[in-house]
Amino acid sequence: MSDLLITNARPMGGDTADILIRDGRIAEIGKGLETAGLPVEDAGGRIAIPGLVDAHTHLDKSLLGYSWYVNEVGPRLIDKIDNERKVKRDYGLDAHVQSMRQALQSVGYGTTLIRSHVDIDTDEGLIALEGVMETRRQLAGIVEIEIVAFPQSGLMRRPGTAELIDAGMAMGADLVGGLDPCGMDRDPKAHLDTIFAIAEKYAKGIDIHLHESGELGAFSMELIFERIRALGMQGKVAVSHAFCLGDPDWNMTQALIDTCAELDVPILTTAPPSREVPSLRRLRSAGVRFGAGVDGFRDTWGPYGNGDMLERSMLLGMKNNLRRDDELLWALDVCTTGGAHAMDRAEHSLTIGGRGDVVIVEGETVGEAIVTHQPRKLVVTAGNVVARDGKSLKERP
Amino acid sequence: MSDLLITNARPMGGDTADILIRDGRIAEIGKGLETAGLPVEDAGGRIAIPGLVDAHTHLDKSLLGYSWYVNEVGPRLIDKIDNERKVKRDYGLDAHVQSMRQALQSVGYGTTLIRSHVDIDTDEGLIALEGVMETRRQLAGIVEIEIVAFPQSGLMRRPGTAELIDAGMAMGADLVGGLDPCGMDRDPKAHLDTIFAIAEKYAKGIDIHLHESGELGAFSMELIFERIRALGMQGKVAVSHAFCLGDPDWNMTQALIDTCAELDVPILTTAPPSREVPSLRRLRSAGVRFGAGVDGFRDTWGPYGNGDMLERSMLLGMKNNLRRDDELLWALDVCTTGGAHAMDRAEHSLTIGGRGDVVIVEGETVGEAIVTHQPRKLVVTAGNVVARDGKSLKERP
Ligand SMILES: [Zn+2]
Ligand SMILES: [Zn+2]
Repeated sequence: MSDLLITNARPMGGDTADILIRDGRIAEIGKGLETAGLPVEDAGGRIAIPGLVDAHTHLDKSLLGYSWYVNEVGPRLIDKIDNERKVKRDYGLDAHVQSMRQALQSVGYGTTLIRSHVDIDTDEGLIALEGVMETRRQLAGIVEIEIVAFPQSGLMRRPGTAELIDAGMAMGADLVGGLDPCGMDRDPKAHLDTIFAIAEKYAKGIDIHLHESGELGAFSMELIFERIRALGMQGKVAVSHAFCLGDPDWNMTQALIDTCAELDVPILTTAPPSREVPSLRRLRSAGVRFGAGVDGFRDTWGPYGNGDMLERSMLLGMKNNLRRDDELLWALDVCTTGGAHAMDRAEHSLTIGGRGDVVIVEGETVGEAIVTHQPRKLVVTAGNVVARDGKSLKERP
Repeated sequence: MSDLLITNARPMGGDTADILIRDGRIAEIGKGLETAGLPVEDAGGRIAIPGLVDAHTHLDKSLLGYSWYVNEVGPRLIDKIDNERKVKRDYGLDAHVQSMRQALQSVGYGTTLIRSHVDIDTDEGLIALEGVMETRRQLAGIVEIEIVAFPQSGLMRRPGTAELIDAGMAMGADLVGGLDPCGMDRDPKAHLDTIFAIAEKYAKGIDIHLHESGELGAFSMELIFERIRALGMQGKVAVSHAFCLGDPDWNMTQALIDTCAELDVPILTTAPPSREVPSLRRLRSAGVRFGAGVDGFRDTWGPYGNGDMLERSMLLGMKNNLRRDDELLWALDVCTTGGAHAMDRAEHSLTIGGRGDVVIVEGETVGEAIVTHQPRKLVVTAGNVVARDGKSLKERP
């Protein structure tokens, strides 16, 4: 929570202005602001955008810092889950070290707020959660990390997992996770009843991975909606991926989207090119809160990705066929202010009173900054300079 | 057509070897090759891949070298075509200069073979073709450019265009282009009869832009197949985009794919995240020749892209959900050897007798090289060094 004056910036690509941050909040935006005694950063006429927001990732999974992982994994979901468990064991993977590496790489790219799912299962227990919580402590003031207690290996199919999720919430996880109530756990009623009960007990929110597509995904969404209504959990339950919202059946998806708006269910996407995904235009016009994330990357699941949410805003734009410059701004909004809003942070924007999270980017316009996603000149979190020229100031382990 | 010894390279990520190029062809690959009198380049243990192949682009369209183009274009196809015509006029766009800029940027990224569509219409006549042909002359030995005479504004709907396409072929274009015979020209029979007649007259091939999806695209494909059979033009007609091959109706698309294999119709994709596209796995297993391109970029049509075919191989992998390292090699093949094969170049590979087009890339494995697509260390065309550290040696205008 510091004071900082950023001079000669172009907020959102507009006219040159100074941005004054006091106590970690944006206090003033204008020309020739008072500088006495404040640290000053000259943006050199570059564009200022809000801190990037990675609203869906897995800090405990990446293999950053290791040799390239040669992926020879089988095609089924269970192949991937079993393989990951084996690699974790063989490598002796340390969730704290890995999450430090990934989070600081993301800070270099300008991310100042992260929601990370963290694996909890009956093999590893709460070790990964402990590791990511330690990372959260060490990176306080650099990047804010929100943790979802995530049953990656299933909940009902691995007895004892629910108790561990419960214990994880007691330890300090922020949200209860869920995963494909039908497809993964084969018992949607029990899966959802369990995670909603834990969330109620701790008065916390929920973020459910829902890869189920078509009518199956729609069914799970309906079961989720029923529980939100019954428990009065409007605004507290987010759905990640929600591929079923990208189904070509317009009537089916519109009913689901309208209900997301009515029950205030934020949707979090990673905009994978290979899948049907929720449409940015449709969620926007329905008024659904919408964020994006990089998902896991450079892990045993797949090779793509690097943590860059500015590149992700390009992929989101490409996926949604956004071509106009005003449309590109929508994509960036999902990866900044919109994503923070989906995570219940109302004041994450370049406006007076907004969080002092500012990223200085290269480009003539915001559109060019998104498309070329060159190394970030400067990253500021709550008024503290945390990265320069694409690299976090704090060194990666 | 030069001699060059590249030492200390890892062809396709394998063991370290030297690559000897004589008279522009790969003469030998092995350890401790004879160097007497030859120019030598040390690859420093980096990976060598074949020259990248951009099998579908528009060299005459990009606005490289100008300020960022703020896109405010309307949503319809005709809005985009009309807008482009207006911008060309307002900017006084010079197809020669623009194609030099784009082609040399691509050379910096390691592209050594390009197929470019070039606009021909009744407003501009053959000016763009002349410009790109001049670029082809000036860049001989640096990058090979194949030109498609392309009726961007329609053929039947703009009388006089067919005669201009004919004149373009007489001038030296390599292939006859076509565009959405139903969707654009509203007269598929006349459109296809016209372009096939011009191709027959000059004994040249055809490359048709087919954006039409679903049953409409399937209908146009069938009309194309009928003409290939009737005229014995097997192996001479390529289809670009072919979104209809990505239609979820498996039976319909499999019949089309099988016929592409039977009649040897190469398919060229740009792997756009927003569309259904031909599946790499399915075309591969059917034995259809398959190439990829960057399409137009940084133009009035849209902001994305940069000419990098190594990045495109990543997008192709993401689009096709390729996660294993052996699958990533398929994506790279489409962007190198496979793309050249789709353009009737049989000997574009890192093997004895192959073209001496070699790109030295960064990464522990080919998979990492694709995913991170860092600046290319060295680019060699037919034994000549044409780019270093991401930049073509010949300067861009
Ligand atoms: Zn996830
Ligand atoms: Zn095209």
